[in-house]
Amino acid sequence: MKAIYPGSFDPVTSGHVDIIQRAAKVFDEVVVALAVNLEKNPFFTIDERLAMLRDACSHLDNVRVDFFGGLLVDYVENQGAKVVIKGLRAVSDFEFELQMALTNKRLKDSVETLFMMTSAEYSFLSSSLVKELAAFGASLAGLVPKAVEDRFQAKMQQRRQEAIDL
Amino acid sequence: MKAIYPGSFDPVTSGHVDIIQRAAKVFDEVVVALAVNLEKNPFFTIDERLAMLRDACSHLDNVRVDFFGGLLVDYVENQGAKVVIKGLRAVSDFEFELQMALTNKRLKDSVETLFMMTSAEYSFLSSSLVKELAAFGASLAGLVPKAVEDRFQAKMQQRRQEAIDL
Amino acid sequence: MKAIYPGSFDPVTSGHVDIIQRAAKVFDEVVVALAVNLEKNPFFTIDERLAMLRDACSHLDNVRVDFFGGLLVDYVENQGAKVVIKGLRAVSDFEFELQMALTNKRLKDSVETLFMMTSAEYSFLSSSLVKELAAFGASLAGLVPKAVEDRFQAKMQQRRQEAIDL
Amino acid sequence: MKAIYPGSFDPVTSGHVDIIQRAAKVFDEVVVALAVNLEKNPFFTIDERLAMLRDACSHLDNVRVDFFGGLLVDYVENQGAKVVIKGLRAVSDFEFELQMALTNKRLKDSVETLFMMTSAEYSFLSSSLVKELAAFGASLAGLVPKAVEDRFQAKMQQRRQEAIDL
Amino acid sequence: MKAIYPGSFDPVTSGHVDIIQRAAKVFDEVVVALAVNLEKNPFFTIDERLAMLRDACSHLDNVRVDFFGGLLVDYVENQGAKVVIKGLRAVSDFEFELQMALTNKRLKDSVETLFMMTSAEYSFLSSSLVKELAAFGASLAGLVPKAVEDRFQAKMQQRRQEAIDL
Amino acid sequence: MKAIYPGSFDPVTSGHVDIIQRAAKVFDEVVVALAVNLEKNPFFTIDERLAMLRDACSHLDNVRVDFFGGLLVDYVENQGAKVVIKGLRAVSDFEFELQMALTNKRLKDSVETLFMMTSAEYSFLSSSLVKELAAFGASLAGLVPKAVEDRFQAKMQQRRQEAIDL
Repeated sequence: MKAIYPGSFDPVTSGHVDIIQRAAKVFDEVVVALAVNLEKNPFFTIDERLAMLRDACSHLDNVRVDFFGGLLVDYVENQGAKVVIKGLRAVSDFEFELQMALTNKRLKDSVETLFMMTSAEYSFLSSSLVKELAAFGASLAGLVPKAVEDRFQAKMQQRRQEAIDL
Repeated sequence: MKAIYPGSFDPVTSGHVDIIQRAAKVFDEVVVALAVNLEKNPFFTIDERLAMLRDACSHLDNVRVDFFGGLLVDYVENQGAKVVIKGLRAVSDFEFELQMALTNKRLKDSVETLFMMTSAEYSFLSSSLVKELAAFGASLAGLVPKAVEDRFQAKMQQRRQEAIDL
Repeated sequence: MKAIYPGSFDPVTSGHVDIIQRAAKVFDEVVVALAVNLEKNPFFTIDERLAMLRDACSHLDNVRVDFFGGLLVDYVENQGAKVVIKGLRAVSDFEFELQMALTNKRLKDSVETLFMMTSAEYSFLSSSLVKELAAFGASLAGLVPKAVEDRFQAKMQQRRQEAIDL
Repeated sequence: MKAIYPGSFDPVTSGHVDIIQRAAKVFDEVVVALAVNLEKNPFFTIDERLAMLRDACSHLDNVRVDFFGGLLVDYVENQGAKVVIKGLRAVSDFEFELQMALTNKRLKDSVETLFMMTSAEYSFLSSSLVKELAAFGASLAGLVPKAVEDRFQAKMQQRRQEAIDL
Repeated sequence: MKAIYPGSFDPVTSGHVDIIQRAAKVFDEVVVALAVNLEKNPFFTIDERLAMLRDACSHLDNVRVDFFGGLLVDYVENQGAKVVIKGLRAVSDFEFELQMALTNKRLKDSVETLFMMTSAEYSFLSSSLVKELAAFGASLAGLVPKAVEDRFQAKMQQRRQEAIDL
Repeated sequence: MKAIYPGSFDPVTSGHVDIIQRAAKVFDEVVVALAVNLEKNPFFTIDERLAMLRDACSHLDNVRVDFFGGLLVDYVENQGAKVVIKGLRAVSDFEFELQMALTNKRLKDSVETLFMMTSAEYSFLSSSLVKELAAFGASLAGLVPKAVEDRFQAKMQQRRQEAIDL
């Protein structure tokens, strides 16, 4: 069975990687699908996010990284898949994801959302938290894959250089 | 992929059947597994609950009804399965099921729990509610499969007869 | 408009009285309806609970105390009413009451449940808490009407006497 | 009894209409009151939102559409009303609405907020979700009244024309 | 500052020990206070629970194990303390503990409850879960102190022997 | 023991003052620490917020007002403190604060966060609500200290004058 794991992954965290690894154990194929939402104001570009995702998943044979625009349910159908995977951390996640799952069910009845509980050690982790910690110069070790740590440092240095150049 | 859908099903409701039908569309095989817990005080006997489950699932080719004692993760492993399916209705469900999923992960790391959101129309439905409504003589139409409605009436009549016989 | 305010009132608390008073300001008539549930194991008898309710509501001209068995929606219809009033304190209340309201709507579409938020000062108060505090001999002043305080003392003394007599 | 149902209705959804219809059955008069909040950045203009509301309520004799600025409790008092109606969908709604109800009670003790549970089939629905789905070109059938569907299409076409004209 | 950490500890878990150790770092003295509630039906006797607590805290110089009956706030005052420590795991804990803290504040204004968040790795752990797992013969390693594991085995063996003797 | 009570205090409310007063009773020293976050768009300047905090705490001998930039855990360590105090009002607070506490624990294991439940009468109160009410010209009496009420009026008048001058 093929499963789609969608997200904005800005950036991918250790919590995402945990879900991807566990999904890769139970599904035949996992497609990590970056949702390209033009209206948001991301920290990393689409290319950077895809590169970090590909790096984080390179050790998993049955995981492929992709991106999509438009409605998730259309993308899932075009991929010939029937299953969407989402991670659940907390009650606030639950309510939002319940709303999304019911909406997607209404839009396309053939697509089913399956939820996995985030491991306890990553229950507090989110992409937003990671970006906030990075802005304060806190260590990200263990919270994101090594490649994401490096890219944060490069990005921060580039931003400082741009500020000096102005 | 084979998925195990465990529960006490005392009795099976239309909400359970909805989850079973949706699971049967995405998994190769679904085993509905009645948890035989000796300490609880069930309304229906194990045999009655199994009969109602079999009746409710008879139209689904890739669904099998079974029962188990002991730890769920041991049963899942013995079945050669890696996936457990649970339905989520509300925030209180979420907290309990999160606890259970983390516990089962700790007991056996190879077993993964996948959650499905209950359809909006069954979000308020539970086996306890059904039994309470039956006790007040309220109609169960739409809340449980037809065979469960019938069995409730037979059970209620039998109990009244027993009360008279005392 | 006539509104029904159901409950087991074992015993009526200052939080219940607050809801009754506020309901009495906006509805033409409020019927405080004691649900007679034979299976529960109440602390106060039905007669004691009705007496305490009547005492607590005696200053409110448009409030009447009554009791009922069976389904709430049948009682509401028999009273010629369309509206049920419930108080909401916390998230756990919310989930249970949402389930009850959806169930009652399904049983009888003509009956509508309207919820009132409990005043902040009574948000922690429940009949169970009151009984637990009384068991430890803590003061109930402000948590229950004066008549309930007195009846608790009488009940406690009666129970001690019974224990001595054994 | 007259009840005020306030909101920003950007746009009115089938969930709002469900609450309005149910309120119209139990209250003598329902005033659907569009809150004119100058700071927000609405999708539809005040005139468009009022037109859609009037269309959605035209079949209900005892429902009137109005708008107001300033504090809700002042508007309610000016209307000679004592009751505000709000719909509750989920736990996150509950906490926000509890805060609002306690605040309004403090601002004006004579105004009472009564909550109605959203029907299960609309529990996932919100004006924000509708706008997001429309942006992706998803069908809104069943989620909003027919007149709102039409107006979305006109609005979308107008925006595309404006983009071409630039 | 002296802090009281109350509970029924039936039995003490690794989550409790985590809270005790962290409290011992910030408070001058921590009193772990077993609440002796005669109405409950505990698995371990008071003596067993006290022995396991003493064993689990023996490496902490500023921690003392004690027990109390009656109201917690009276015990805290008798101990010359002003602070109660409680652990919070989940939303359901939060609502119950909020109710308890507000009640205790009302009973004795001088006593303050301070809450500590349970470490992520123990967020799913409770004494009830431990007893349930033990009943199924699952390993408790890491979930309870070593002394508790041993005592469970002894207790289980004793119960089996009693069953044979009958 | 020294405790740090951090926040943005834009402005300090009666709920904050309640927490500060209760903390001052149980801790030897309380440092109210204004978090200077350059990215936010505050209503009051840092100087105004510090002045209002100092005014609100002037009657408490063991309370000091300070400010900090950067990571909270670094500030706490620099102050030679081990304890952070946070107030909890509702479930949504709980989830956010749990995330923050687990993150801070990970960043610096020696810093412990202790939570106090907000008094029932302030459970609905927040700085955002106060600013929203002020924008509508509603009375803030009881919701904020007197000095904050005065400063709001001055600020509002200044803004109106600026609008006229344009």
